[in-house]
Amino acid sequence: MVSLLHFGESPETLIIMGPIWNTLDRLRMARLKNLLGKSISRAHRLSLDRQPSEGGIAEALLGHEEEEGVDASVVVTKCCEIQNAISIGATSFLFTQYKYLGVFMVVFGAIIFLFLGSVKGFSTQPEPCAYDEQKLCKPALANAVFSTIAFLLGALTSVFSGFLGMKIATYANARTTLEARKGVNRAFVVAFRSGSVMGFLLAANGLLVLFVAIYLFKLYYGDDWEGLYEAITGYGLGGSSMALFGRVGGGIYTKAADVGADLVGKVEKNIPEDDPRNPAVIADNVGDNVGDIAGMGSDLFGSYAESSCAALFVASISSFGVDHDFTAMSFPLLVSSMGILVCMITTLLTTQLFEIKTEKEIEPMLKRQLIISTVLMTIGIAIVCLIALPSTFELFDLGAKKTVKNWHLFFAVSIGLWMGLIIGYITEYFTSNAYRPVRDVADSCRTGAATNVIFGLALGYKSVIIPIFAIAVAIYVSFTLAAMYGVAMAALGMLSTIAIGLTIDAYGPISDNAGGIAEMAGMSREIRRRTDALDAAGNTTAAIGKGFAIGSAALVSLALFGAFVSRASLKTVDLLSAKVFIGLIVGAMLPYWFSSMTMKSVGSAALKMVEEVRRQFNTTPGLMEGHVKPDYANCVRISTDASLREMIPPGALVLLSPLIAGTFFGVETLSGLLAGALVSGVQVAISASNTGGAWDNAKKYIEAGSTDHARALGPKGSDAHKAAVIGDTVGDPLKDTSGPSLNILIKLMAVESLVFAPFFAAHGGLLFKYL
Amino acid sequence: MVSLLHFGESPETLIIMGPIWNTLDRLRMARLKNLLGKSISRAHRLSLDRQPSEGGIAEALLGHEEEEGVDASVVVTKCCEIQNAISIGATSFLFTQYKYLGVFMVVFGAIIFLFLGSVKGFSTQPEPCAYDEQKLCKPALANAVFSTIAFLLGALTSVFSGFLGMKIATYANARTTLEARKGVNRAFVVAFRSGSVMGFLLAANGLLVLFVAIYLFKLYYGDDWEGLYEAITGYGLGGSSMALFGRVGGGIYTKAADVGADLVGKVEKNIPEDDPRNPAVIADNVGDNVGDIAGMGSDLFGSYAESSCAALFVASISSFGVDHDFTAMSFPLLVSSMGILVCMITTLLTTQLFEIKTEKEIEPMLKRQLIISTVLMTIGIAIVCLIALPSTFELFDLGAKKTVKNWHLFFAVSIGLWMGLIIGYITEYFTSNAYRPVRDVADSCRTGAATNVIFGLALGYKSVIIPIFAIAVAIYVSFTLAAMYGVAMAALGMLSTIAIGLTIDAYGPISDNAGGIAEMAGMSREIRRRTDALDAAGNTTAAIGKGFAIGSAALVSLALFGAFVSRASLKTVDLLSAKVFIGLIVGAMLPYWFSSMTMKSVGSAALKMVEEVRRQFNTTPGLMEGHVKPDYANCVRISTDASLREMIPPGALVLLSPLIAGTFFGVETLSGLLAGALVSGVQVAISASNTGGAWDNAKKYIEAGSTDHARALGPKGSDAHKAAVIGDTVGDPLKDTSGPSLNILIKLMAVESLVFAPFFAAHGGLLFKYL
Repeated sequence: MVSLLHFGESPETLIIMGPIWNTLDRLRMARLKNLLGKSISRAHRLSLDRQPSEGGIAEALLGHEEEEGVDASVVVTKCCEIQNAISIGATSFLFTQYKYLGVFMVVFGAIIFLFLGSVKGFSTQPEPCAYDEQKLCKPALANAVFSTIAFLLGALTSVFSGFLGMKIATYANARTTLEARKGVNRAFVVAFRSGSVMGFLLAANGLLVLFVAIYLFKLYYGDDWEGLYEAITGYGLGGSSMALFGRVGGGIYTKAADVGADLVGKVEKNIPEDDPRNPAVIADNVGDNVGDIAGMGSDLFGSYAESSCAALFVASISSFGVDHDFTAMSFPLLVSSMGILVCMITTLLTTQLFEIKTEKEIEPMLKRQLIISTVLMTIGIAIVCLIALPSTFELFDLGAKKTVKNWHLFFAVSIGLWMGLIIGYITEYFTSNAYRPVRDVADSCRTGAATNVIFGLALGYKSVIIPIFAIAVAIYVSFTLAAMYGVAMAALGMLSTIAIGLTIDAYGPISDNAGGIAEMAGMSREIRRRTDALDAAGNTTAAIGKGFAIGSAALVSLALFGAFVSRASLKTVDLLSAKVFIGLIVGAMLPYWFSSMTMKSVGSAALKMVEEVRRQFNTTPGLMEGHVKPDYANCVRISTDASLREMIPPGALVLLSPLIAGTFFGVETLSGLLAGALVSGVQVAISASNTGGAWDNAKKYIEAGSTDHARALGPKGSDAHKAAVIGDTVGDPLKDTSGPSLNILIKLMAVESLVFAPFFAAHGGLLFKYL
Repeated sequence: MVSLLHFGESPETLIIMGPIWNTLDRLRMARLKNLLGKSISRAHRLSLDRQPSEGGIAEALLGHEEEEGVDASVVVTKCCEIQNAISIGATSFLFTQYKYLGVFMVVFGAIIFLFLGSVKGFSTQPEPCAYDEQKLCKPALANAVFSTIAFLLGALTSVFSGFLGMKIATYANARTTLEARKGVNRAFVVAFRSGSVMGFLLAANGLLVLFVAIYLFKLYYGDDWEGLYEAITGYGLGGSSMALFGRVGGGIYTKAADVGADLVGKVEKNIPEDDPRNPAVIADNVGDNVGDIAGMGSDLFGSYAESSCAALFVASISSFGVDHDFTAMSFPLLVSSMGILVCMITTLLTTQLFEIKTEKEIEPMLKRQLIISTVLMTIGIAIVCLIALPSTFELFDLGAKKTVKNWHLFFAVSIGLWMGLIIGYITEYFTSNAYRPVRDVADSCRTGAATNVIFGLALGYKSVIIPIFAIAVAIYVSFTLAAMYGVAMAALGMLSTIAIGLTIDAYGPISDNAGGIAEMAGMSREIRRRTDALDAAGNTTAAIGKGFAIGSAALVSLALFGAFVSRASLKTVDLLSAKVFIGLIVGAMLPYWFSSMTMKSVGSAALKMVEEVRRQFNTTPGLMEGHVKPDYANCVRISTDASLREMIPPGALVLLSPLIAGTFFGVETLSGLLAGALVSGVQVAISASNTGGAWDNAKKYIEAGSTDHARALGPKGSDAHKAAVIGDTVGDPLKDTSGPSLNILIKLMAVESLVFAPFFAAHGGLLFKYL
């Protein structure tokens, strides 16, 4: 059995993997194969299955309730091979991507150093502090050096988070498939626990690195906390800029493969999803891991890092920043720590107390976690507020002082937390096929793809309404209670249950992959049905996760925006100034520009993929009959090339816009730009995500045929189903590329502006100066 | 022949019209039939055809180059019958709509009176003027009375404009069809001249009513110009609120019919567009007239009325308002008058100097008009500035005084004019199938409807970029030169060539109808080809018209926003205030909410239409073979009912949002709301219009097959063509319902806020007051 798990030497594997291997260097390959082999057994040993696996690894994997008629060892071998191919493809892609990102990190690190260093002409002289002119603070050059270091730290942590997530997911996928043979509960537990490994690891990791960085920076900065936390903002910038490339690159990768595979496989050739005859099938499964897992991991890590930085920066000029109360200062970090604790308790409680017996219980189980963690976290916040914060303290609100009580902050953090839950629920209502909106969309398939697309777009637009009101309420309450610090803390509140959010978010792609592996390994319909049920629940929870990500992004960006304005020494941002207004309208345009790039990228890459898949079907004799394996590697290459090439223009747009606006048009226009991008981007992001999610589940609703209505529309292959597949395909780039990247756009532009604020304030607005 | 034109008595007409007649009262019917009969001959007598029609009306209509093999008199009879059916359907719909609007006018007029009257408790005492406290101005009650009168005037003028436009278009459509038998130039001339009758009539009419209203109001107000022009803003509100219902109602009508007709006819039954066997074909053609003509007429009239009102209001508190220089005060009206003159010269020049010989010359001809009129208008603006304005004068810029020279205003107006041209050209580039973007979209049809939709959406997003920069430049230049007055004048500059804009905009639906009539009357392929060529050019020019409408709407709204802020006595609108920011983010959401309503309305109405059309095809024996006439009236009824019912919720959203925000949240939140709706709505509107236009022309590109590339994708009925039809159908509600209604949304909310500003300033913000 050990040799079986060590695989890779069987002739079949060579057929699958041969061409891919040629494109990778042999050394890393061998190491990876080794790693993967070991890791499966290790992952298994970590298993918390209640039935002890006494018969050794092989027997445990094969399970006690084997499928009839299928040779178990063949199935396991196949699963391992497929898992291996997916894992190698994903690792190879990420490593290639990291090469590009390495170059970016160096270049952008240099830009940060040069721009910030030039603010005071690279002077090493200490200078009077901004908020207490009697004292001397560290020189501007220190800010340049430490901001750059913080940037690099954030970038590396982000990359590490994404990579780790991908590794865990690719360990978990085949295991979930194999467990699905023993029942839906077993499969659910594996997928869910793998998700939690990722969720907790990422949340804890982000917190740890940030804390260590603050601690180390303090060795130099001493009691110059203003400088210290200014420099720390670089951490958020690093995290977010990597997240951008991760999301965009991964998003293009996964959707080019997915759309390409579906268009030829499902629509033209009428073969099932994830059919091993489809040449793009491996690329599709790799995509789930690099896009939905690695990309999403980086993204949520970025959100978390940015909101922490925004809160810390604003706090550094509060009374406890000035009084050097380190406990109060660390309030944002303590809230996050409490969040991890609460999530841990929730997960333990729910997985121990409830057992999934049927597919229908999966979604309620996931949702229950959200509610329980929110309730527990509310208590947790109260505790942290009581212990960490002084009962009264002062915040600086753009020059004016504002007296705040600790219970004000309790409400600010809680409102963020609860509004997040509302956003999550609304997202679920609009994207789950248990409710009317998605069923209406499915129903519109009766009259073809056009009405399906019209209804889907309308649904996405409509789903924006309540989340925006929720965000507005969170902003109003938190801002009124505790100015921009309140907003930053509301964002952290929304993200405080990030560990569970990540868990259920990661659970989706793992189940998706598990289903793919089941199909490719030729497992029975029953098993496929079980993995499909896991996957359908995962679709909805993924939409909920995206809702959280977008909602928190809006709050984070506003907090960063406020921090930027205060760092750039603006007192007001007046909409009636032409400079601000042109920024506002151009900023509101940026999400469209960005989306046009990412959508077009997915479209072109998918076109290439379609052509390749068609070419293979047309020129490879025996492929359609299943006698010959397709050339998976070529499809993997197309996705890789496309995503690496196409991630650069949107990345440049996001990173250059604030630099250009700040340098040539000045801080007022930049303020307008940030506000415009924020208020417009949130809408585009929510509607894109939900439209895509709804189409996906409308299709699944017809396929599952669980109601009379659904059966009237189905079965697979009916005209209504074909129309639903078209909607699903259109929704792919919307929900997995454009939508989720947009929340990075708004956050990243804001944190970049914050980091570069001293430069813009000193040297910005060149165009207006000389006109 | 005269009896032939008097039609309606032939058995065939009875078959078509019988059922419709039952739904209308007989009296109006008879009058309408009479009117229509006379009007065709009257319209013909007005014809400027160079070949004199010596042989009398009949011979002229039949033409000299008759088609072979078709009995000319039968064709003419058929055309007349169809025209009659369309005209009666359109008139009947508009009259029904006007009943609803009449009720609305009375109710909303009462609201205006009550809200504005309550500002000072319906006091009839004169009060100190706002800008010169030494003087006494008219009481607040006068403002309530005259605002209400101005509102009713504006509403009636708008309704009249739309109705007039529809009448002209329904006179012109069959004439265009008949002229198409004699060549493309003759048809073009008829369609174009009919368009100009509408364009000039509307432009002149709007100006005249406004001027008369000012003149009459002045009899009461005397030298209280502040009060006078405050009251005049009601005119803009009236015009715009009618435009909203016209656009939304008409838009739903036309697209429900169009989508319904296409989905069954073209996609399922594979019969051509406008085939008389399709039961929804009359409703479709009626829709072109009530949506694209009447709706668009009201819309552009509204834009014009609002920008004039905004400019006049701002000017009333300038130095020439205070000094009572009526010529300078009337500068906005003079610019518009000069515009009409310039457009007249342009039209005469171009139609006399150039003759259309082939289809390819149509588009350049229309575009040439835009350039020539822009160049001439620049000179015109210079003349008006020199004559009407003092060389130096003072404007009030939110409390501060700003000294402005007359050449500053020349640049402000000109930048609006030229940026409008740029927006027009960019729109053309993205929606005409002569350029790459649309060809790329057409190319993506190779891989099916999904990639077509993805590419189309991406194109729409991309097409936003340059127009937004153009708007930003116009705002920056005009604002810097002459504050909000500059912005209002830039908007009027963009609209100064409105007569030509309306001409080429109206030309489109007329040609579309002409094509429909040709098809229904069974005319030859050659004639259909000619009308198709006219129509294709019309599609692009319609997109250009929409570009103008949206661009000017952005500027108008900003000017109205500025006027509102100044009337509400706000000094700044600070983005960093929570009240403003929540307004901004909720405002940015409104266009999505609005679009979700209109798209869903079109979708549901189209579903009903599809069911009815399918029902008729399935249950009426001989329908598909052409032996039996379908029941057109039922389809007309479905469209009418749907549009009247569905126009209410979006209308309520737009009209209630500012009232609720102002009354409960106060003027700061309302300011944010307006700015948010403006910057977000512009993007949604531009992208929706252009996406829809591009899909439409991508489909036409494949159908026309004029390049090798297009032929490879075609012919009609190929898979790529089917994919293109799906895109076109999705685009219909985007480009003709949601997109164009959105620019009314942003203008209307702004002008409504302006009118109600004194109320909000006095009694608004209830919620924050009591919390």
